[in-house]
Amino acid sequence: MQYYIAKTVNGNFGGVLERVKEAIKGEGFGILTDIDIRVTMKQKLNLDFREYRILGACNPPLAHQALSIEDKIGTMLPCNVIVQNLGNGQIEVAAINPVATMAKIDNPSLSKLADTVADKLKKVISLI
Amino acid sequence: MQYYIAKTVNGNFGGVLERVKEAIKGEGFGILTDIDIRVTMKQKLNLDFREYRILGACNPPLAHQALSIEDKIGTMLPCNVIVQNLGNGQIEVAAINPVATMAKIDNPSLSKLADTVADKLKKVISLI
Repeated sequence: MQYYIAKTVNGNFGGVLERVKEAIKGEGFGILTDIDIRVTMKQKLNLDFREYRILGACNPPLAHQALSIEDKIGTMLPCNVIVQNLGNGQIEVAAINPVATMAKIDNPSLSKLADTVADKLKKVISLI
Repeated sequence: MQYYIAKTVNGNFGGVLERVKEAIKGEGFGILTDIDIRVTMKQKLNLDFREYRILGACNPPLAHQALSIEDKIGTMLPCNVIVQNLGNGQIEVAAINPVATMAKIDNPSLSKLADTVADKLKKVISLI
């Protein structure tokens, strides 16, 4: 099982990024964090990196459930959705697959919740 | 293998949080994100949650290497370090264990890098 759910679309980076943000919000997630890797790499290492954003998506009721049944699951929250510019008008969007990353945690209630979140993230990706 | 590296210490939440931030920086990480779960739960769900912070730690050179050898690894970045108040003066600190979470990704160069990052995160936890 892959650790991500991904899709590549044609478009411009800014336009796809906005669509991704809207789709994330439409599935009931807030965007708690937004890391611009290109800016970070320029500022910290003076390196030119492709456009690459990491959006941290959090559905508060589901996050609350997750934290209630697995108190250190915050080490894996929020669920990231990345948007990167592959060049030639190709933009890739990928969400973490919590079913894969949480598979080794021996907690059946968490597994069920991971399924629910993964379904929502699949929906987000399908809408792009 | 556990998905986290954890330790519980005696202290007050704010004091331990500051020590964690200093230790993270001392190991060459920047703190790119800082989520206050207690505030988020209050704002979004009007629920009272224990003090719980999620700090997103990123070592730019190592993150650059990781993104260069595994282009969707941003779905797992930054590496989170959580600090939570267990009550009775007990504060738990836990870092994600990237060796565990990245174990299923078939990329030997990434595995080596995950070892390096895990060693740094273990050092952070050992300093608390």
